[in-house]
Amino acid sequence: MKKPYIDMTAAELTAEISELEAQYKKVQALGMSLDMSRGKPCQEQLDLSMGIMDVLDSSSDLTCEDGTDCRNYGQLNGIEEARELLGDMMENNPKDIIIYGNSSLNVMFDTISRVWTHGVMGNTPWCRLPEVKFLCPVPGYDRHFSITEYFGIKMIPVPMTKEGPDMDIVEKLVREDSAIKGIWCVPKYSNPQGISYSDETVRRFARLEPAAPDFRIFWDNAYGMHHLYDHHQDHLIEILAECKRAGNPDLVYKFASTSKITFPGSGIAAIATSPNNMEDFLTYLRHQTIGHDKVNQLRHVRFFKDIHGMVEHMRKHADILRPKFEAVEQILARDLEGCGIGSWTCPLGGYFILFDSMPGCAKDIVARAKKAGVTMTNAGATWPYNDDPADSNIRIAPTYPCLADLNNAMQVFTLCVRLSAAKKLLREKDQ
Amino acid sequence: MKKPYIDMTAAELTAEISELEAQYKKVQALGMSLDMSRGKPCQEQLDLSMGIMDVLDSSSDLTCEDGTDCRNYGQLNGIEEARELLGDMMENNPKDIIIYGNSSLNVMFDTISRVWTHGVMGNTPWCRLPEVKFLCPVPGYDRHFSITEYFGIKMIPVPMTKEGPDMDIVEKLVREDSAIKGIWCVPKYSNPQGISYSDETVRRFARLEPAAPDFRIFWDNAYGMHHLYDHHQDHLIEILAECKRAGNPDLVYKFASTSKITFPGSGIAAIATSPNNMEDFLTYLRHQTIGHDKVNQLRHVRFFKDIHGMVEHMRKHADILRPKFEAVEQILARDLEGCGIGSWTCPLGGYFILFDSMPGCAKDIVARAKKAGVTMTNAGATWPYNDDPADSNIRIAPTYPCLADLNNAMQVFTLCVRLSAAKKLLREKDQ
Repeated sequence: MKKPYIDMTAAELTAEISELEAQYKKVQALGMSLDMSRGKPCQEQLDLSMGIMDVLDSSSDLTCEDGTDCRNYGQLNGIEEARELLGDMMENNPKDIIIYGNSSLNVMFDTISRVWTHGVMGNTPWCRLPEVKFLCPVPGYDRHFSITEYFGIKMIPVPMTKEGPDMDIVEKLVREDSAIKGIWCVPKYSNPQGISYSDETVRRFARLEPAAPDFRIFWDNAYGMHHLYDHHQDHLIEILAECKRAGNPDLVYKFASTSKITFPGSGIAAIATSPNNMEDFLTYLRHQTIGHDKVNQLRHVRFFKDIHGMVEHMRKHADILRPKFEAVEQILARDLEGCGIGSWTCPLGGYFILFDSMPGCAKDIVARAKKAGVTMTNAGATWPYNDDPADSNIRIAPTYPCLADLNNAMQVFTLCVRLSAAKKLLREKDQ
Repeated sequence: MKKPYIDMTAAELTAEISELEAQYKKVQALGMSLDMSRGKPCQEQLDLSMGIMDVLDSSSDLTCEDGTDCRNYGQLNGIEEARELLGDMMENNPKDIIIYGNSSLNVMFDTISRVWTHGVMGNTPWCRLPEVKFLCPVPGYDRHFSITEYFGIKMIPVPMTKEGPDMDIVEKLVREDSAIKGIWCVPKYSNPQGISYSDETVRRFARLEPAAPDFRIFWDNAYGMHHLYDHHQDHLIEILAECKRAGNPDLVYKFASTSKITFPGSGIAAIATSPNNMEDFLTYLRHQTIGHDKVNQLRHVRFFKDIHGMVEHMRKHADILRPKFEAVEQILARDLEGCGIGSWTCPLGGYFILFDSMPGCAKDIVARAKKAGVTMTNAGATWPYNDDPADSNIRIAPTYPCLADLNNAMQVFTLCVRLSAAKKLLREKDQ
């Protein structure tokens, strides 16, 4: 157990800084160039899916079970067998699913764009309202925030607890303010904490009483299948079913994709939602396209065969990712435990670990790491408008680097965390 | 040469109708079920591209020339080699090209949606304007009209000549009315006539002087490669280059895809436009997606190798389609020439033939054909709001049925044309 930095004298801090700076110079001299900024799968993960390149060839029959030739136009909702597979993946009825193109982010963007121009189920288009607000549980996913910011939607941060968004606040705000039209959620293995919403949280979501009839929960279940362990897994209550039971069937848009199951950029995305909402989606979709890529849908179905095939496949991803997450957690514990200068999550799945530094240190840590050749996600990215008021969140993305690089990068990282904290504490003593 | 219907006496018309009705009953009894409603490739055409299923397999290196792993996230503009191939296809500089997903219609929809919410290059978003108008050369493509109608854009029909839209009218309208923000064009082998814009027309387009600074030409070059003959081909002046020469580099958005080259729904789409416009597209795109399907882009590049490969491939499409177009034209000539009850185009490429019936007959003809088991595109579909004021346009889509079915369908069609005209003329004599 190390001595808490807070208990160090000025002299001790000075010695610590001098020692850390020497180490920092050494690692800087190595000229590393490691990127931990995004949640990208690594090459071995991508290699797991190379078999998908073989399931269809020129001798394949590209006809669906219902007789549709996947090579030609049509099937706006997606092919039946893909709706069934993604239905199993998302725990939804295939008839409640639309299969899209390669990106669920794109579907979320298009959904905001649609309600911006045409409104939700006959309600006023959001572009005609004086103000539109979204609740943004924080820390959260930067690409969600970038969509709402692009449309000029005012983002209201809502603190995350270990059980999900603080539901006392969510319930109050949506009940009181009809300008609040939505909330971004990553309910399972959340980005960036890797926590999953508790049963209580999901139930309270399904029972929300928003003032706005066109309020929708944007439920981005990006990591539904992305466990790190075989048995030690989070379980999430299925939101559509829960909303239906609660008498609020239209409250939620649920998004998912196979981006981190097969190939990012060449997977298939989907929404699951109520029949009313689906009708609303289709009024838009039928003008936007004749149909999405059915050959790729068929490729996914033939590759996985069924949900068990997908589960087995995800086990292989877990075998690659588990040691990386554990390595990060071990290095954080080894180098920082007891120092009292940061805390971190130890998720059971997903793509991220959240590190919380001492207030006011996150930007400094990320900048120091960068100068030593380690690129982290920008500090602030976990907050709307890139504005982390405490300047403490740092998202760690352990998936992409190989284990050796990850070890090096994390050593640089903990070094920067310690250096930044020691300097801050010394500055405070000087004042 | 048949006797013109217009010269027939009431008795002759009655005899003709009786004869035609007997024939109609016979074909109705055959219980045909033929669909000529959409411009879908036929199975043999799809079979031409089955080789694309073999160019990538699990042993393939899915790395681009610039080192990008096509399996992972990234490359918002598309991969370099795909931009080069589609640059050659579209006759544009690869740097002026963005590769999208599977549908150029989707790109057009998204483009309207983007300017609706965010405006063109800093101009007022169209959603905030009291009125937005589009020029719609008629007859034209129904899916274009459906996009503008969905956004509540007022569509103003502009007559097509044999050289393209009537440019006297286009020039005058765009100069005088700043609410006119765009025009839909299918400049080569147009849908539904199969005509190509003359050099003069393209030059006048490039020299338009719109009152609206955010006026754009929506140049849907869907059939740029879709010739029916080897040497007897239309040539279209490249619009981006012409706009640049005319000092109006930002005037045009150009769209294309490989939908009718490889597989509809599993091809790749693209835009070509000026650097200013491209910057505008990217401000939107970078929030909408992390990137489109690069594996499919690579698949297309490896399949065609280069533009010559694509040209050779299109020759095979032509060999399948040419006899179909010629069969339609022969039956129309055989059954209708001299009757004075309709005219039709004989295009050198594209997917359609336009038939013009006597005024007031198109809906009736299509309904009669339907009752005899032949589904044509709805009459009216070639006009905004489905409203063909003369009720005379019928789009013929010869590509999908096999030659035998096509012959049967066209016989039904000409029968319905004659029946409808004879009845109309007889009614007029009775009045």
